[in-house]
Amino acid sequence: MRKTLLTLAVLASTALANALNLYSPDSTFVMEFKILDGGIPAYNLNYKGKPVILDSKLGLLLKADQGTMSYDDLSRKNDVVDKSSLYNGFEVKSVATASQDTVWNPVWGEESEIRDHYNEMAVTLHQKQNDRDMVIRFRLFNDGLGFRYEFPLQYNLNYFVIKEELSEFAMTGDHWAYWIPGDYDTQEYDYTKSRLSEIRGLLEAAVTGNLSQTIFSPTGVQTSLLLKTDDGIYMNLHEAALIDYSCMHLELDDKNMVFRSWLTPDAMGDKGYMQSPCKSPWRTIIVSDDARDILASRITLNLNEPCKIEDTSWIKPVKYVGVWWEMITGKCEWSYTYDLPSVKIGETDYTKVKPHGKHGATTENVKKYIDFAAEHGFDEVLVEGWNVGWEDWFGHSKDFVFDFVTPYPDFDLPYLRDYAKEKGVKIMMHHETSASVRNYERHLEQALQFMNDNNYDAAKLGYVGNIIPRGEKHYSQWMVNHYQYVLEQAAKHKVMINAHEAVRPTGICRTWPNLIGNEAARGTEYYAFGSIKTGHTTILPFTRLIGGPMDFTPGLFQMDIAKVNPNRPVKVNSTICNQLSLYMTLYSPLQMAADVPESYEPYMDAFQFIKDVHLDWDKSVYLEAEPFEYVTVARKVKNGEDWFVGSTNGEKKRTSKIKLDFLTPGAKYEATIYKDGKKADCYDNPTDYVIEKKKVTSKTTLKIDEARGGGYAITIRKL
Amino acid sequence: MRKTLLTLAVLASTALANALNLYSPDSTFVMEFKILDGGIPAYNLNYKGKPVILDSKLGLLLKADQGTMSYDDLSRKNDVVDKSSLYNGFEVKSVATASQDTVWNPVWGEESEIRDHYNEMAVTLHQKQNDRDMVIRFRLFNDGLGFRYEFPLQYNLNYFVIKEELSEFAMTGDHWAYWIPGDYDTQEYDYTKSRLSEIRGLLEAAVTGNLSQTIFSPTGVQTSLLLKTDDGIYMNLHEAALIDYSCMHLELDDKNMVFRSWLTPDAMGDKGYMQSPCKSPWRTIIVSDDARDILASRITLNLNEPCKIEDTSWIKPVKYVGVWWEMITGKCEWSYTYDLPSVKIGETDYTKVKPHGKHGATTENVKKYIDFAAEHGFDEVLVEGWNVGWEDWFGHSKDFVFDFVTPYPDFDLPYLRDYAKEKGVKIMMHHETSASVRNYERHLEQALQFMNDNNYDAAKLGYVGNIIPRGEKHYSQWMVNHYQYVLEQAAKHKVMINAHEAVRPTGICRTWPNLIGNEAARGTEYYAFGSIKTGHTTILPFTRLIGGPMDFTPGLFQMDIAKVNPNRPVKVNSTICNQLSLYMTLYSPLQMAADVPESYEPYMDAFQFIKDVHLDWDKSVYLEAEPFEYVTVARKVKNGEDWFVGSTNGEKKRTSKIKLDFLTPGAKYEATIYKDGKKADCYDNPTDYVIEKKKVTSKTTLKIDEARGGGYAITIRKL
Repeated sequence: MRKTLLTLAVLASTALANALNLYSPDSTFVMEFKILDGGIPAYNLNYKGKPVILDSKLGLLLKADQGTMSYDDLSRKNDVVDKSSLYNGFEVKSVATASQDTVWNPVWGEESEIRDHYNEMAVTLHQKQNDRDMVIRFRLFNDGLGFRYEFPLQYNLNYFVIKEELSEFAMTGDHWAYWIPGDYDTQEYDYTKSRLSEIRGLLEAAVTGNLSQTIFSPTGVQTSLLLKTDDGIYMNLHEAALIDYSCMHLELDDKNMVFRSWLTPDAMGDKGYMQSPCKSPWRTIIVSDDARDILASRITLNLNEPCKIEDTSWIKPVKYVGVWWEMITGKCEWSYTYDLPSVKIGETDYTKVKPHGKHGATTENVKKYIDFAAEHGFDEVLVEGWNVGWEDWFGHSKDFVFDFVTPYPDFDLPYLRDYAKEKGVKIMMHHETSASVRNYERHLEQALQFMNDNNYDAAKLGYVGNIIPRGEKHYSQWMVNHYQYVLEQAAKHKVMINAHEAVRPTGICRTWPNLIGNEAARGTEYYAFGSIKTGHTTILPFTRLIGGPMDFTPGLFQMDIAKVNPNRPVKVNSTICNQLSLYMTLYSPLQMAADVPESYEPYMDAFQFIKDVHLDWDKSVYLEAEPFEYVTVARKVKNGEDWFVGSTNGEKKRTSKIKLDFLTPGAKYEATIYKDGKKADCYDNPTDYVIEKKKVTSKTTLKIDEARGGGYAITIRKL
Repeated sequence: MRKTLLTLAVLASTALANALNLYSPDSTFVMEFKILDGGIPAYNLNYKGKPVILDSKLGLLLKADQGTMSYDDLSRKNDVVDKSSLYNGFEVKSVATASQDTVWNPVWGEESEIRDHYNEMAVTLHQKQNDRDMVIRFRLFNDGLGFRYEFPLQYNLNYFVIKEELSEFAMTGDHWAYWIPGDYDTQEYDYTKSRLSEIRGLLEAAVTGNLSQTIFSPTGVQTSLLLKTDDGIYMNLHEAALIDYSCMHLELDDKNMVFRSWLTPDAMGDKGYMQSPCKSPWRTIIVSDDARDILASRITLNLNEPCKIEDTSWIKPVKYVGVWWEMITGKCEWSYTYDLPSVKIGETDYTKVKPHGKHGATTENVKKYIDFAAEHGFDEVLVEGWNVGWEDWFGHSKDFVFDFVTPYPDFDLPYLRDYAKEKGVKIMMHHETSASVRNYERHLEQALQFMNDNNYDAAKLGYVGNIIPRGEKHYSQWMVNHYQYVLEQAAKHKVMINAHEAVRPTGICRTWPNLIGNEAARGTEYYAFGSIKTGHTTILPFTRLIGGPMDFTPGLFQMDIAKVNPNRPVKVNSTICNQLSLYMTLYSPLQMAADVPESYEPYMDAFQFIKDVHLDWDKSVYLEAEPFEYVTVARKVKNGEDWFVGSTNGEKKRTSKIKLDFLTPGAKYEATIYKDGKKADCYDNPTDYVIEKKKVTSKTTLKIDEARGGGYAITIRKL
């Protein structure tokens, strides 16, 4: 590792102390740090000679009453210490710069090698009035900026409570923004593309229903946020390494076009309990005039700590099917009986109630899925609704809602475990917590051990409903701490985690690669619940996926849900080829073929792509990209010469034109192209597709028509 | 078990349906249940022909918005269902009566056999408008009434949230009340004796400082509450079997002299999350014209479920000393070093810091206590401050504050464990949680296993500070659930629990006899912190102890704290004989000799009583009792013929006159009487005592002078 360290002494000159410049390695970015009047720290960012972030203030607001007490004097109440400012009265105490240019290898990912290349500047600020220091560390990459606050161990800043973080991101204009409403409890919204100035007027309508939601501001939006200027500059705002801190949203001052950080509060309205030495997560600004660079940026992963798991051999990509879609479409139930108004775990005797006969997770049904998985080379079968308690699992704020170990009478766990094992398949565990977090933590050790004892190696977690402890929010520091605790306990048990309804990821999968998935966005289930905007999957890579992979669960082939469940007359506005493309464009080491096996039977030729697609890559090249319109990517397999390509299209029919110059020059390949048929349309004709074989080389250019809500997928085999 | 069951059919007559009478077995009590206008359930209570509780309404207020949602329709927000009344619109649907007269044997206690003798009436009420039922069950004993609400499993009352319970206790006059301020977080107040009408004016002054306190009303007081009418009727209001419910306080409507239940809220202000079938705790009213009957009442235990632990052989009384008073007086520290502003468990390297040399829990110091315990027949040595983390353990709302398994560098746990074992002594574990409850639960299994692996069988728990999850209160349903969870997990590990700062006990030690102690009141430590009113220990048996034993930790012999720590010039306003008496009058199976060994050395003759006193009894007879003035009790040992007597005196010098007619007629005994010297006074001359030996029989009457704040203790050995 080549690391150059330069330290600059305390700067005597006022002029120097007021503005410190940091350049990206290739000099396309210049960040300027300065102290504004009143000792307010601020930064701005230039890209290719032009401002992309105007002067933006930094700092935090602390809780004034710090509540320290002397044990000797119980008659004295909490001292009121007005030390609430960590946002002004600062001067530069010292500056340390450094550079890094290294490569590292992720356990799984879009590439097998990632370059970490930046120039860094750590500014130590001294606040005279309170005699304390704070550090702001900046890292400037060739595709963007990251910065974070660091709080050194010191008597005058030891325990403190954050009321709000005051990090600004000052916009240079009324840009286009691709946003979802800021919410302490859910991210499952459709995206809206609008001018910044229009957010206020559009937010209320954007807030569609959810089982747990808490809007906090008429101009509050979530990270990660994508922006596009009229000059064609793309910007993504997000955070990296969200550990032991509250999750950040952004509130827009739409008078001045300045975004400011807005953290998630706890039940008391406080936003973070801190003990120095400690630090905030990194706030990240990815910028490019080429949309593809946003998708190719690895800033988020680079700003996370290296892998903390010594032996990662048990961490593998997972391709799965599952007893899930049947319940999502309402064809089957998670529950076992209608006989009981409610159940009490450990008390209700399920052998004495009458099953309604619509239970999805039965031995017989799961066997079917195991057979299907084994036949088609899938690793695992997710089974939801296998464990007692689903009769009243949500909407009641129920504390002891599940025990995570007791199956229903019609789910023969040992039999299925062994049957799957014979067939070379695993069952994927499901831990729906119902957001009853203390209950889950009480059972966690037993639940993980149960997994170890029964040949499970991966668990899908759910946090549906309002959090218990009541008053906490899904994205508060308390809950961020919980998700991390579960992840680390799971790692001790060599269990991979796919956490739904948890906080959106921020690159922690670098440090804990057993985090193989999150949901944290509007996913496939919404095709069955309500709707998903056509084009949703062409904005997700620019927003949600910047933090980490999504368990989007694509692979729907039956676009008329009424054919799965006559009582659910909704349509899936996506073509089959669009569904295939998602395995490529929504990268994830965990991928589901979401539909019921019967839906695939008429289309086994198209299904072949799902069987063939890899989940872990040597290299990725983004070929075409425009947020909310289209994304086309090519990826090379590990340990081989084959490539895969996928293109996801949004609302407008288009022709995709890609050069295959990423192929090895001189080599010959055969491409199998799965593309929309001539009449394909995500609403009117979603199952119209064509499979074409073609010889290609690195000199080939392909032109493929994409339907509205369509796409294509290509396997390119080296001959 | 003789149980008579009579069931009355639905009562057609309005007259009958409006008033139902229940008599105590000996007919001294008559309870009348009635439905007031508007369908409001109510009761009143007569004792020996006179009212003691006037018409008092019953019922509960529920949260209107029940928040159930259909999974099929995510666009619909929470339904508003105004079914908030469980307090009116009722009619009597049916009445069931029963009687019981049985005896049962506690694992430990003031007697080896307890009679459970009552008449019961369970009234099923039907609320027409909401088509649902509620049951109120009354049990009338020969010394008082208990009643509770029961919520049968039904579709129309399945999941519900309590906003407030509305149980009234209507007073017949402006009685004397012996009260402490109602508070969601502490009970560590001095008692005030005043008229009910004076509570409002006196409450603010009664609220002395505490590390976690939350007053909720200018006329709110805690249970259990003692009252005395001008006619000389004593009444105690409390609750029994507080399980999975919020702890009850009482708010006085001082215009009408009616107390009403006031539950403890959660972080959101809600007071209970319920799932039928379920029930409230019992609300208890103990009444007698003889104060001794209040102390002798076993209503609280009788209303709890029988013991749930199969093998109770590991549950034993514990007499202990401890490394504790040195820290409470400030002579030593719990902590190890002053070098660190704060510590991080698992990260801070204690071998690299400079110890301040005042750490109490050192190998050498603990050895001293083990030797002392072994020499004088004590079972255990409590050691506080043995584990890392005490440098910043409170006042910071610190989450990961202790790990409960890592000792300080100067506490050689394995050595001391084995040294103690050789000497026939155990070390008592200390788990100060700092009220960081998730942290404690995360470590609980490991902490209990650690105890099993290291020869610990009892743990003192602490919950000092404001509860984390922040917003919860020490006595909320959430926390009641936690204390119970810990108790049951401990039972699995055969560990006895002594929980300080936890909710006040309500007789649960019958069901879980490993609960051998709680604090939940102002205890001995306050002699070193501030003060304790003279007479405090003569009101505790009438209030705090009604729910269960208190780890008061008596046994101070050095009344001038400056002699223990020159920097703490406070005095203990209690004579030595008062301290001795507490082992008798404040019954507990867990008793500490609280002082440092050096304090006992000059008074080994008096110390002999502490060595001799038993902690578990065959029989108890209350001889004299007046709340806030004096309590005298005699107790017979198990498996023997000896008796012990103790008398605790309050503020007024007096002469105690007791007949020893509880002794076996014809038998001869030798009494060793430890009594205040002629000049003894709790302020001026606390260490003046006289030990007298005397032959006594069942015909003997003793007259013993008690000093202000004095008392006496007697061992009566059968010859």
